[in-house]
Amino acid sequence: MSYLNETHDPALQSWVDSANQPDNGFPIQNLPFAVFRPAGGTQDFHPGVAIGDQVLDLAALAAAQVFTGKAAEALGACKSTTLNKLMSLGQPYWSALRLELSRALRSGSALQATLEPLLSNIKDVELGMPARIGDYTDFYISEHHATAVGKQFRPDNPLLPNYKWVPIGYHGRASSINVSGQSFPRPVGQTRPATEGGTPGFGPCQRLDYELELGIFVGQGNTQGERINLDEAEAHVFGLCILNDWSARDLQAWEYQPLGPFLAKNFASTISPWVVTLEALAPFRIAFERNPNDPQPLPYLSSAENQASGAFDIGLQVFLSTQASRAQQTGPALLSESNFKDAYWNIAQLLAHHTVNGCNLQAGDLLGTGTLSGPGKGKEGSLLELNNGGKQPVKLPWGEERSFLQDHDEVILRAACRKPGYPTISLGQSAGTVLPAKI
Amino acid sequence: MSYLNETHDPALQSWVDSANQPDNGFPIQNLPFAVFRPAGGTQDFHPGVAIGDQVLDLAALAAAQVFTGKAAEALGACKSTTLNKLMSLGQPYWSALRLELSRALRSGSALQATLEPLLSNIKDVELGMPARIGDYTDFYISEHHATAVGKQFRPDNPLLPNYKWVPIGYHGRASSINVSGQSFPRPVGQTRPATEGGTPGFGPCQRLDYELELGIFVGQGNTQGERINLDEAEAHVFGLCILNDWSARDLQAWEYQPLGPFLAKNFASTISPWVVTLEALAPFRIAFERNPNDPQPLPYLSSAENQASGAFDIGLQVFLSTQASRAQQTGPALLSESNFKDAYWNIAQLLAHHTVNGCNLQAGDLLGTGTLSGPGKGKEGSLLELNNGGKQPVKLPWGEERSFLQDHDEVILRAACRKPGYPTISLGQSAGTVLPAKI
Repeated sequence: MSYLNETHDPALQSWVDSANQPDNGFPIQNLPFAVFRPAGGTQDFHPGVAIGDQVLDLAALAAAQVFTGKAAEALGACKSTTLNKLMSLGQPYWSALRLELSRALRSGSALQATLEPLLSNIKDVELGMPARIGDYTDFYISEHHATAVGKQFRPDNPLLPNYKWVPIGYHGRASSINVSGQSFPRPVGQTRPATEGGTPGFGPCQRLDYELELGIFVGQGNTQGERINLDEAEAHVFGLCILNDWSARDLQAWEYQPLGPFLAKNFASTISPWVVTLEALAPFRIAFERNPNDPQPLPYLSSAENQASGAFDIGLQVFLSTQASRAQQTGPALLSESNFKDAYWNIAQLLAHHTVNGCNLQAGDLLGTGTLSGPGKGKEGSLLELNNGGKQPVKLPWGEERSFLQDHDEVILRAACRKPGYPTISLGQSAGTVLPAKI
Repeated sequence: MSYLNETHDPALQSWVDSANQPDNGFPIQNLPFAVFRPAGGTQDFHPGVAIGDQVLDLAALAAAQVFTGKAAEALGACKSTTLNKLMSLGQPYWSALRLELSRALRSGSALQATLEPLLSNIKDVELGMPARIGDYTDFYISEHHATAVGKQFRPDNPLLPNYKWVPIGYHGRASSINVSGQSFPRPVGQTRPATEGGTPGFGPCQRLDYELELGIFVGQGNTQGERINLDEAEAHVFGLCILNDWSARDLQAWEYQPLGPFLAKNFASTISPWVVTLEALAPFRIAFERNPNDPQPLPYLSSAENQASGAFDIGLQVFLSTQASRAQQTGPALLSESNFKDAYWNIAQLLAHHTVNGCNLQAGDLLGTGTLSGPGKGKEGSLLELNNGGKQPVKLPWGEERSFLQDHDEVILRAACRKPGYPTISLGQSAGTVLPAKI
C-alpha cells in the first residue's frame, strides 16, 4: 500500500495562511494529530489536528456533524480525552477522516466558515499525551548504534550473531513516558563497584544520556495468538512521533545482565505531542536497501513490497541547550543529524516480528525504534557515541564541554521530511530538561 | 506495620458455612478480591470478595449503603469493572473495608439478611482480570533459580556479580496477561542456527516451559521523580496473586542478548483471579533471613523492620495434567513444591528498588517475583530446572515423560499459607493450557 492519493498533491493550499508558508512543517499535506486544551486550563484534553500554526478542535468538529460515512465515525471517536479510540478504528477510517479534513481545509472550501471558529493558535494551547500507552516496546534497529555501543564492550566483535536476523527489542516502561516539555530529576541508583567484589556505588547518575528515536503508535491491534503479516503490518500503524529514550549509562552497565535495561531507562521518556500518520509520510517512502553482504531476512520479515517501499526518508536532529547558553541567550547547539532510512529494520518488520509468536498489540501501544544513529561522524544518536564512551567530551560553541548531561541541560530532538517540490512534513519536537537529583 | 488486628482472630467463624470447613482456603480470615460476572454472561465484570465457596457482590453491597466512612468510600470504588479504583485508594481504605466485611460476614452479624442475597456460588460465576495492568515488571528474586539457570550457561560462575546487590528485574508484557483458564497457541519464532553463522531455525517452540511465580499488585502508586521508601513500601501493595510466566527457552536463548527476554515471554502469562491482601497474609509474616556470608544490602534496601518481618511463608506447588492423564481420568501430577520465604529479596525491597530512580508505579501495576525455586531437589520452579536443562526428562506417574511442555498440557500452580492453629489462607490457582501452534 503506498497510500498516495489527492491529499498528497504538492500544489494544495489551505485557507489557513500559515499552512502555506514555506517550511512551516504543518502544511495541508501533513495534518498531524494531537490532544490539547487551552493553556493553563484544567479541563480534559481532546483531539485536534494541526494546520499551519493552528490546531483544529476535532471534538467540536464532531459536534458540527459536517462529515458523513467513515470520516464521521472517525470524528465520533474524537469525542475522547486521547486518540486511542480513533487509533483502534483502523486505516480506512483514518484515511477517510484525513481526506475530508484535507478537503475542508483547502482554499475555497465551503466549510471554511464552519471550521474557522474551531481553530486555536498552537501557542495558546497545552498539548497532552496523545494516547494512553498500554505497552511500550523499544527496539534496537540502527546497526550503526549497535555497532558503536558494541565496540565499547567487544572491540573485535561488536555486533552479536543474532543482530542481522532478529529485530532485537525489549519491553520498556509506559508510565514514565511524557510529552515534550517534560522535566525530571536526575535518576539515582547503584553503580558498578570500584573494585571487583566491592560494594556498589550509590548516588545520582553520572553518565546521563539521551537517545534519538522515533516512536511508532499502534492503531488497530491483533488478537492474542494471531500474528500480523508483513504486508498487512503498516495498516496497523496509526503514525509516528519523536522519542527521547533517556538513559543512565552507569546504572545500565551494572544492572543490565542478564535481563536487560531496567532502572537505567524507566525513569523518563519524552515524546513529541504530534502524531504524523503513515499516510502523511507516504511521499517520503523509499526502497528498503540492504548491503548485499547482509543476509536475506527470514520469509516472515521479507517481501517484495517491503523491499520496494518499506523505508522512510525522515531527517532527525539533536540539539542541546544548557543553563550557560540560555544565560548568554545563545540558541541550542546542533549535536548531530541522522536519518530513519539508515536503520537496519523497518516499521512493518517490527510489527511482524513483535506478533510472530502471537503477542497481542493494542491501539495506543508505542514501539520505539531504538537510537537512530547514521553511518559516520556527525550522525551519532547518543552522547555515548559522540563522546566515544565518555573519553572525548563534546565541545559546545559557547565554550562548554559535555561528556554526559549536566543538570538543567535541555535536549531537543527534531524530525522532518524534506524533498524538492514537496512541502516540509514536520514531526515537531521532543524537548526535555534534566533537573538536579533528589537524594 | 504488622497489620494484625481483630480480623486475624483464628476463632472467627462465618455465617457462610463453607467458610468454616477445614482447609477450605477462603475462610473469613482471608477475604480475597476478584472481579466476576455470571458464568456464560456478557455483562461487565464487577468486584467481589470470596467467603468459603461463595462470592459476595461488592458493587451490589455498595448500593445497599450499609457501611460508613472509609469502608463506604472503598465500597464506592467497587462500582467499577476492575479493582483499579479500590487499589488506588490506599491501605487505610482497604483495611477499613476488610474490617467491615469481616464483621458483616461473622456468625451472628445483623447484616446477614442483607448480604445473603448478594452471594453467588463461585462455581456459577466467571472470574475476570482483577485489574487493568498498566505496566508489568518481572523480577528474578530466587537465588536458587538464578543459580540453577546460570549453571547451565556458566558452570563455574553461575551467579553474576550484581545478583546479591541489585534486585534484578525487567519490564514484561501487560497485554498478554490473562486469568486462570487461559489457553494459547504454542509460540512460533526464531531459534539459534544449528551451525555458527548459519541461518536461524524458525517454527513452533520446542522448549516450552512454565515459571512458578507470585504476582504483586500495586495499590497506591508514587509520583514520577519521587521514590517509595523501604518501610513505607508495603502500604503501596494491594495484594498477591499466583503468576505463571510461560517461557519459550529456545526462542529466549537466541534473542535475549543484549537486551533481555522479549518474544520468549510476551505471548502469554497466566495469573490467579483472586488477589489476597497483605493484611490477610499478615499472620504468615516471618523474619527475612540471609546467609551470614551474603552482603548487607545497601541502606535503601535494608531496615530493622524489614529484616524482622519482611518475608512471607507461602507454600507453592506445580501440577501437570496431560491429554493422556485426562483420558485415563488420572489427576494432575505434583511436579514440585517451594516457598516464597526462600527468595533472596522481599516485597518491600522490590518496590523500593523499582522507584529509587523516580520511576512511577500506578494502581494495578503487576510485579512478578520471578521463578520461585527453593533449595534442593523437588523445589524447582520450572521444567528447565527439573529436567537439568533438557537432559533428564521428568517421569510422570502415568508413564509419560516430559522434557518440555507438549500440546494440550495443562499447568496448574497453587499457593496457600498453612500453620497450626490458623485457618488455611489460599491464593487459589493459576491454570493454563498449551494449544498447538498456528503456522
